Amino acid sequence: MEKFKVGIINVTGYAGVELARLLHRHPRVELSSITGRSAAGQKLADVFPHLAEIDMTISAELGEVDLAFSAMPHKSSAEVIIPLVERGIKVVDVSADFRLKDAGEYPKWYDFTHPAPKLLRKAVYGLPEIHRVEIAKANLVANPGCYPTGALLALAPAVKEGLIHSDIIIDSKSGVSGAGRTLSLSTHYTEAVDNVRAYSVQGHRHLPEIVQELKALTKFSPSVTFLPHLVPMSRGILSSCYATLKEGKLGKKEGKLTDLYRDYYKGEPFVRVVDKPPETKQTWGSNLCLVYPMVDVRNSRLIVISCIDNLVKGAAGQAIQNMNIMLGFSETDGLEALPVYP
Amino acid sequence: MEKFKVGIINVTGYAGVELARLLHRHPRVELSSITGRSAAGQKLADVFPHLAEIDMTISAELGEVDLAFSAMPHKSSAEVIIPLVERGIKVVDVSADFRLKDAGEYPKWYDFTHPAPKLLRKAVYGLPEIHRVEIAKANLVANPGCYPTGALLALAPAVKEGLIHSDIIIDSKSGVSGAGRTLSLSTHYTEAVDNVRAYSVQGHRHLPEIVQELKALTKFSPSVTFLPHLVPMSRGILSSCYATLKEGKLGKKEGKLTDLYRDYYKGEPFVRVVDKPPETKQTWGSNLCLVYPMVDVRNSRLIVISCIDNLVKGAAGQAIQNMNIMLGFSETDGLEALPVYP
Amino acid sequence: MEKFKVGIINVTGYAGVELARLLHRHPRVELSSITGRSAAGQKLADVFPHLAEIDMTISAELGEVDLAFSAMPHKSSAEVIIPLVERGIKVVDVSADFRLKDAGEYPKWYDFTHPAPKLLRKAVYGLPEIHRVEIAKANLVANPGCYPTGALLALAPAVKEGLIHSDIIIDSKSGVSGAGRTLSLSTHYTEAVDNVRAYSVQGHRHLPEIVQELKALTKFSPSVTFLPHLVPMSRGILSSCYATLKEGKLGKKEGKLTDLYRDYYKGEPFVRVVDKPPETKQTWGSNLCLVYPMVDVRNSRLIVISCIDNLVKGAAGQAIQNMNIMLGFSETDGLEALPVYP
Amino acid sequence: MEKFKVGIINVTGYAGVELARLLHRHPRVELSSITGRSAAGQKLADVFPHLAEIDMTISAELGEVDLAFSAMPHKSSAEVIIPLVERGIKVVDVSADFRLKDAGEYPKWYDFTHPAPKLLRKAVYGLPEIHRVEIAKANLVANPGCYPTGALLALAPAVKEGLIHSDIIIDSKSGVSGAGRTLSLSTHYTEAVDNVRAYSVQGHRHLPEIVQELKALTKFSPSVTFLPHLVPMSRGILSSCYATLKEGKLGKKEGKLTDLYRDYYKGEPFVRVVDKPPETKQTWGSNLCLVYPMVDVRNSRLIVISCIDNLVKGAAGQAIQNMNIMLGFSETDGLEALPVYP
Repeated sequence: MEKFKVGIINVTGYAGVELARLLHRHPRVELSSITGRSAAGQKLADVFPHLAEIDMTISAELGEVDLAFSAMPHKSSAEVIIPLVERGIKVVDVSADFRLKDAGEYPKWYDFTHPAPKLLRKAVYGLPEIHRVEIAKANLVANPGCYPTGALLALAPAVKEGLIHSDIIIDSKSGVSGAGRTLSLSTHYTEAVDNVRAYSVQGHRHLPEIVQELKALTKFSPSVTFLPHLVPMSRGILSSCYATLKEGKLGKKEGKLTDLYRDYYKGEPFVRVVDKPPETKQTWGSNLCLVYPMVDVRNSRLIVISCIDNLVKGAAGQAIQNMNIMLGFSETDGLEALPVYP
Repeated sequence: MEKFKVGIINVTGYAGVELARLLHRHPRVELSSITGRSAAGQKLADVFPHLAEIDMTISAELGEVDLAFSAMPHKSSAEVIIPLVERGIKVVDVSADFRLKDAGEYPKWYDFTHPAPKLLRKAVYGLPEIHRVEIAKANLVANPGCYPTGALLALAPAVKEGLIHSDIIIDSKSGVSGAGRTLSLSTHYTEAVDNVRAYSVQGHRHLPEIVQELKALTKFSPSVTFLPHLVPMSRGILSSCYATLKEGKLGKKEGKLTDLYRDYYKGEPFVRVVDKPPETKQTWGSNLCLVYPMVDVRNSRLIVISCIDNLVKGAAGQAIQNMNIMLGFSETDGLEALPVYP
Repeated sequence: MEKFKVGIINVTGYAGVELARLLHRHPRVELSSITGRSAAGQKLADVFPHLAEIDMTISAELGEVDLAFSAMPHKSSAEVIIPLVERGIKVVDVSADFRLKDAGEYPKWYDFTHPAPKLLRKAVYGLPEIHRVEIAKANLVANPGCYPTGALLALAPAVKEGLIHSDIIIDSKSGVSGAGRTLSLSTHYTEAVDNVRAYSVQGHRHLPEIVQELKALTKFSPSVTFLPHLVPMSRGILSSCYATLKEGKLGKKEGKLTDLYRDYYKGEPFVRVVDKPPETKQTWGSNLCLVYPMVDVRNSRLIVISCIDNLVKGAAGQAIQNMNIMLGFSETDGLEALPVYP
Repeated sequence: MEKFKVGIINVTGYAGVELARLLHRHPRVELSSITGRSAAGQKLADVFPHLAEIDMTISAELGEVDLAFSAMPHKSSAEVIIPLVERGIKVVDVSADFRLKDAGEYPKWYDFTHPAPKLLRKAVYGLPEIHRVEIAKANLVANPGCYPTGALLALAPAVKEGLIHSDIIIDSKSGVSGAGRTLSLSTHYTEAVDNVRAYSVQGHRHLPEIVQELKALTKFSPSVTFLPHLVPMSRGILSSCYATLKEGKLGKKEGKLTDLYRDYYKGEPFVRVVDKPPETKQTWGSNLCLVYPMVDVRNSRLIVISCIDNLVKGAAGQAIQNMNIMLGFSETDGLEALPVYP
């Protein structure tokens, strides 16, 4: 069976390098081109010794591929993707450039005018558990942000089934790799270790993405507060989501919250509804999302806790899951490794 | 000036050993007696090499002291404290045994019948920023739990001023020392590192304490969801508190939330209302509580973030602050050290 | 192709659970039996949620298998292995019970009299890079200790080629998982984090193993000082090895130290001689050993630094590598995953 | 008692900010001037929230002071110090610019020609345990490097008493704060966490400093290999030092190694010779150096392990200790705080 050729644009960030790690072992594709800007001309192994087994040179331009992953920063990603899509190359965009359906949101949240609103409308939001059918037909898939992945998988069943009122609070705790490989004081080791802090308190860029997707699942307009926190670990996001239960809704299904969630995610290879509060460590290195729904009976409040590895299900792994769907592979191809613990 | 004699009952837990560290440098007291059960007969320096400068032997029984700190586990603490208080010795109880005014709560939350409901009524809840006057006259002070300290200092001004509705969510992130020095799988290094998880999801013991104190500040009965999380660091608690603003209440005082908080905590030596999201690292080793109030304007929601060092303001430091008030010392005596950073 | 049946005795320690993770994805074997003592009767997924995909129950007794891995503690391991070997079942022993050729060493280092000195003589020390041929014929392979694996791979070429004098110092830094899953104060999170310490300073049990294997490579009796240190990370061992170069020996091959090492490890799938000082993170989750030899020209001293993941190449991965050799599989089967970084 | 005025040049690095923390609580001095380059004009509290209690503005130029600490990078430090010393201001230089007696070493190790060789000869190497008398008379004290402090205190007694041969190996493990507050990939959180690595393997700048001071203690020229390692913690250095014992030397004093070390450090307020292997955590935030000497009897080798907090005894604390000696204060003034544990 001939392998499809795939490429990674901007392999040098954490999402890019994680794509390389996973794609190298994928049974159906050949990683045939990797690009990087400052690192162009260098051997991949020299920049990332853990990938020494992959004998490739980072180039400035993408070679011929059947499908490309873009791990470029936002704005630059759109610029490089648009001509590719026009040439008929399938693309999974790990950046935010094709996630928000309303082009008007880009100046507000990302500080640029979207260069291709038409393409934006055609792009599919790549959360397979919600948009699998569209992804299968798409040429351009916008890979969800790390926080939205965990938060949406936690909330989708409750919102879709109309269990909750519109007030939603998402309190997320992320490992530091989510902030990327670019240096900053807040991700300097001595500043980030032994420390927890909230950030982007006035509104994180992943908020409109969460709102857009929750809205699409229901009739009401959710009123979402999303507060991300940085915690001292390299990988993992745990999101604790809070909402008020509609009276009676679950009443009829008393004790059946978990069943409802299990039904919703029936057959999903990467979502596991669990009986005990999950831990980020239980997803380390894997494409799993663990979801734990419960009721705070004192206050008729729904609490849903979800965990993912932000670099896998929150980035590179989900991108490959999207590719698998787009190219008609088994959805778990290349993503079967169990979490690495402890 | 003669020094008061103080003792620590059960010096071998993290609260006890932190008391020893701080009391050793206190200008007005002499640490004259320390007890421990399994460690009785051993030199303090052999059990805790960082305290080698303190030349004391751990004994089985408390010697003569003017004031005692109990760092015993709950239930045992009440047993050892009751005779002391009857003998007229002032006590600061770091355990939970005298925190809940309603004796009926103890069987529910702590699984024992309270042995001295009368004494319970006389005991004062030792959060100086709220109960300073009573603490000054008290013989028995119940030192607040670590989570309640941070959560109450975050919420007290908003509740007291009637800014918010009764629905309150407290999402706390604690370092591992909060779980104590007793071994357990969840605090085994390899299990706790690189990991975040929620725990006590069905109701943490600190919840009734939070509810009791919030109720006392207002007319309404707050509906509190409190979810604690364990994060991989040794010290620190960050609490993110969420509530819905009453319309108009802050409207008149638009932009004045910080001022209102600053007024509320005017003159407080250990509470600092800050302009930027605080970080637990900024309190490491100190008795500070940093409080950051803000409005999520998209949803008229109040968010207050607070940070403390759980072993200092959340335990030993606050106990010493209470002692300072009880014995008429300057409230900051022995607690002036700045946070250790980075 | 029918799969071989393999079992894990004592799956509940870190070596056992890592074996399960890796064997589950091995193309040639079926994990058909797992045992545990206190956990017998429980589902593997309940004890180890990251292995939820493996639907197995932990039993008290090993079922029928072609090959068994023993991850029992020392002494107990021998007891359970001896009857298996007698019944003709191939065994890889992850414990120390069959590593030391001289039965007289067991009372000294492990505090028990070896129950089967004859079997000890037949057992093969499972460091494939040195004993591959014997391993292929063996029924009982003693999987090397984590420290010896890194230290021996660092020193073997220099010792074998006679480059150094007999004085050897091995200073090793290990992650905490090396201490196992059994609770202890020194591996309690708050004690192990933000901390480095040496331990077993009077002689670590891995010392006789290192000496035995170095002796076998040369004519002289090496005078080895081995000092292990605990560092705050879960996985990884970095060993810095120091020895005095024999004059002239490398002189003729000036600048050829790396070449000599590359020659020695030519064709080895899991040893990589590197050009820059390696980092433990570059091996995380993989079966790699990185080796960096260099000369301190100021003092004619050889320095060799090696890195492994102590749970993979230092335990479970190497055990599977041994199994692959014993059963005639490709040596890399089931061990192809790249290191997880960052 | 009037307080002496002191200033910190370049308060914005980790050594500078630690000086500010400690000096603020010093009973005999007033921190009256702090400088910084890029941060000039900003409030100290805005740059370092943990120092909010210190109400000072960072200025571009040093004000009038009795003694100045320079925490400038090397080369720049000499430039700013020379005119100060000429004006009769006492200086403690935390940089390396006045540590090496031989001006010819600067081009080799620090890549600049020393601008004031005469002053270099007058400067005193500020390790009080060795040079206390000269420090008391000095106008310019060169504060030792962090690694040399730990290594010299570990080795000085053995070298001075002629216990060992000239071959010395120093294997040091440092927390990441030793690398400073300047951003770099190797100190990026996600790169440094879960990782150990050696660095500066071809010769670290602290080597000549170690050699110079060891030479001064003995007649022989020590042959020192010094290999520093980065470990994932913010503070602390543990150095494991290895040397060969001279036959007979300790023989007469069999079992008296610890006594010999205790004698050597008799009366030293900050060096503690300990009976058990020390841990960096036991010095966190304090000016202590723990020293553990032992004999590897199998090989007649001396092993000495020392621990310090690199930012205190390894930088700011030792600088204040030097100031205390220079200004005739009690040597422990401002340095009495016990280590913060856990």
